[in-house]
Amino acid sequence: IPSKLPEVKTTIFTRMGQLAHQYNALNLSQGFPNFDPDPKLIKLVTKAMNAGYNQYAPMAGVLELREVIAQKIDTLYGQQYQPDSEITITIGATQAIFTIITAFIGHGDEVIVFKPAYDCYEPAIEVNGGIPILIQMNNKDFKVDWADFRSRLTNRTKMVIINSPHNPSGTIFSDQDMLQLQQSLTKTNIIVISDEVYEHIIFDGNAHHSASKYPDLASRTFVCGSFGKTFHITGWKMGYCAGPAELMHEFRKVHQYNVFSADHAVQRALANYLKEPQHYLGLNQFYQEKRDLFQSGLSHSRLKIRPCMGTYFQLLDYSEITQEQDEAYAERLVREKRIACIPISSFNTNGLDNHLLRFCFAKTNDTLKSASDILCSL
Amino acid sequence: IPSKLPEVKTTIFTRMGQLAHQYNALNLSQGFPNFDPDPKLIKLVTKAMNAGYNQYAPMAGVLELREVIAQKIDTLYGQQYQPDSEITITIGATQAIFTIITAFIGHGDEVIVFKPAYDCYEPAIEVNGGIPILIQMNNKDFKVDWADFRSRLTNRTKMVIINSPHNPSGTIFSDQDMLQLQQSLTKTNIIVISDEVYEHIIFDGNAHHSASKYPDLASRTFVCGSFGKTFHITGWKMGYCAGPAELMHEFRKVHQYNVFSADHAVQRALANYLKEPQHYLGLNQFYQEKRDLFQSGLSHSRLKIRPCMGTYFQLLDYSEITQEQDEAYAERLVREKRIACIPISSFNTNGLDNHLLRFCFAKTNDTLKSASDILCSL
Ligand SMILES: CSCCC(=O)C(=O)O
Ligand SMILES: CSCCC(=O)C(=O)O
Repeated sequence: IPSKLPEVKTTIFTRMGQLAHQYNALNLSQGFPNFDPDPKLIKLVTKAMNAGYNQYAPMAGVLELREVIAQKIDTLYGQQYQPDSEITITIGATQAIFTIITAFIGHGDEVIVFKPAYDCYEPAIEVNGGIPILIQMNNKDFKVDWADFRSRLTNRTKMVIINSPHNPSGTIFSDQDMLQLQQSLTKTNIIVISDEVYEHIIFDGNAHHSASKYPDLASRTFVCGSFGKTFHITGWKMGYCAGPAELMHEFRKVHQYNVFSADHAVQRALANYLKEPQHYLGLNQFYQEKRDLFQSGLSHSRLKIRPCMGTYFQLLDYSEITQEQDEAYAERLVREKRIACIPISSFNTNGLDNHLLRFCFAKTNDTLKSASDILCSL
Repeated sequence: IPSKLPEVKTTIFTRMGQLAHQYNALNLSQGFPNFDPDPKLIKLVTKAMNAGYNQYAPMAGVLELREVIAQKIDTLYGQQYQPDSEITITIGATQAIFTIITAFIGHGDEVIVFKPAYDCYEPAIEVNGGIPILIQMNNKDFKVDWADFRSRLTNRTKMVIINSPHNPSGTIFSDQDMLQLQQSLTKTNIIVISDEVYEHIIFDGNAHHSASKYPDLASRTFVCGSFGKTFHITGWKMGYCAGPAELMHEFRKVHQYNVFSADHAVQRALANYLKEPQHYLGLNQFYQEKRDLFQSGLSHSRLKIRPCMGTYFQLLDYSEITQEQDEAYAERLVREKRIACIPISSFNTNGLDNHLLRFCFAKTNDTLKSASDILCSL
């Protein structure tokens, strides 16, 4: 039986997580909080189960939840999506992205991915017979060279995937970036996936420039969001995507046969919880304090702190300490220093190695202090 | 933008459900209970959320849950699966099936599907570039002609999908059927999907002949199970598949990028709940009583009752009443009689029409009585 994905191994997240477990290390590798969601949200799920929401939710999701998502996007970004035909609830943003790619990408289709990138894009493209076209962003400031981008567009380019705030670098696309993207795609049929799962984790008064803010871009874009990231419930596996009805129609053809629908009680709970904007608007401040705490704990370390404008990830440059490769050094840190992170080479093209490690700071202040103490000892 | 699934429409389940809602009809169409799960199970989920199981579950699922599934299969069917490498927890059996097909089926590969069939198989094959080879079972007793089956095998046949107890007919594969299947595939590399989501809903002392009972068959088979069907929690979207490590390894490559993992707290709850076999072994009896109640309510009707050996579906033949087509008659029943069911033509090859309707009897006794009263008036 030949493999359709011969090169795929266990994800770096699973591998580093297992290693962290094995060595009883502080785990700042995979991106998830080590604290709990609001007890109110748990109570709402229990209430929904007790109220009988235990059978199939509608295929596209609970309408009330789709309505409040539409309202949020309208308020924050000024774009009106129709809840019935333009928003679908998914098993996290991951399933949204996989399903979009499956719905539109076939043999020989090219999909542009900016590297470093979260690891789920390329296998989804490849398993559908598509060709990932990798554009490596420079490792200084992770900016896209839009002239270079335009030169990579061909008549086989079917899709572009962007991600801002950006995992793993913590940078964000500016208004200028979004306008360049919009402009570059005019007169093409190229579809965009805008992975915006960290939209509510953005710092220093910066604005999130959602693709949904730009009408000519939004008309070809699936915007993907995550409740896991926003409400500290990565294990509940709940997200959504929003996009123009014509594209969403094709999306749902695949969605309905992939998973059919998402957990009913959780959707009811989120429909209620999301009605109060303070439940997500306070998240910037919450994570900015954690970033600042972690960064200030590192002021006496030999690690160089890269700017972090959003997400709950901090890049640290260890080139003053050793010239080892990212993966080797990351593994050694677990074994010898009992701290786990993600080597950035695993997000790069061809494992390009710039001596960068990613630390997740969605952790309790105690964990962050212990982590910075260890890192200062390197 | 050309569609990858030009022929897919909204599923018959969504359409009949919406129609039922619109006409405030008794809804015996889509297969789900109109009663609640055991309150103990809901309490276990709440307990798990309060105990902090709110972040990513392991990619392949909570190990304790996989262990108790392995134990169940060993006890009931005598096959030993390794929990770590041979069982994966999925977003219902639907996601398991979609993911298996995606992991193994590519351009031009043939997949044998017996019709009538549940509607999720063919689009999953087609979106991966495969070719569904449809074998229509005869509409008298829904038996497979295994000589005919063997004549349809080619060197492009990559997969066979079976489903027993069978949706929508309520028939089951006999030991003889399973041996015929096993025998027919010897010396091929053909993979089998055995959709066994109704394994615990089987009547009159009949045995479920799981593919996992047959070692030579099990070594090429993914057995798919559903907690939704067994514990009245279709809306929780939780299932699993079991299969040989070599095949499961390829499955997980796709699974991890499709959904990554399933709800953590629900998995913890099920790991506990599944430990007590009486929680599923009583289901045969429970549904047999419902089948008998529904059937006896129909004894004075002009509908002909087809034998139902398993599943929670009852086929009724309406050919004594009208010669209308299944879909037209099913829709008329909603509008004029306020009762919704599923027309079997939508499960057949080319809409082959034999005047059969499917009624779901996973309903309260009151609903079943009202339904049979309406049906007696036809
Ligand atoms: C499913 S692993 C995802 C966690 C994450 O987003 C990350 O660590 O980058
Ligand atoms: C996701 S719809 C499935 C319900 C079902 O199994 C059926 O009605 O056949």
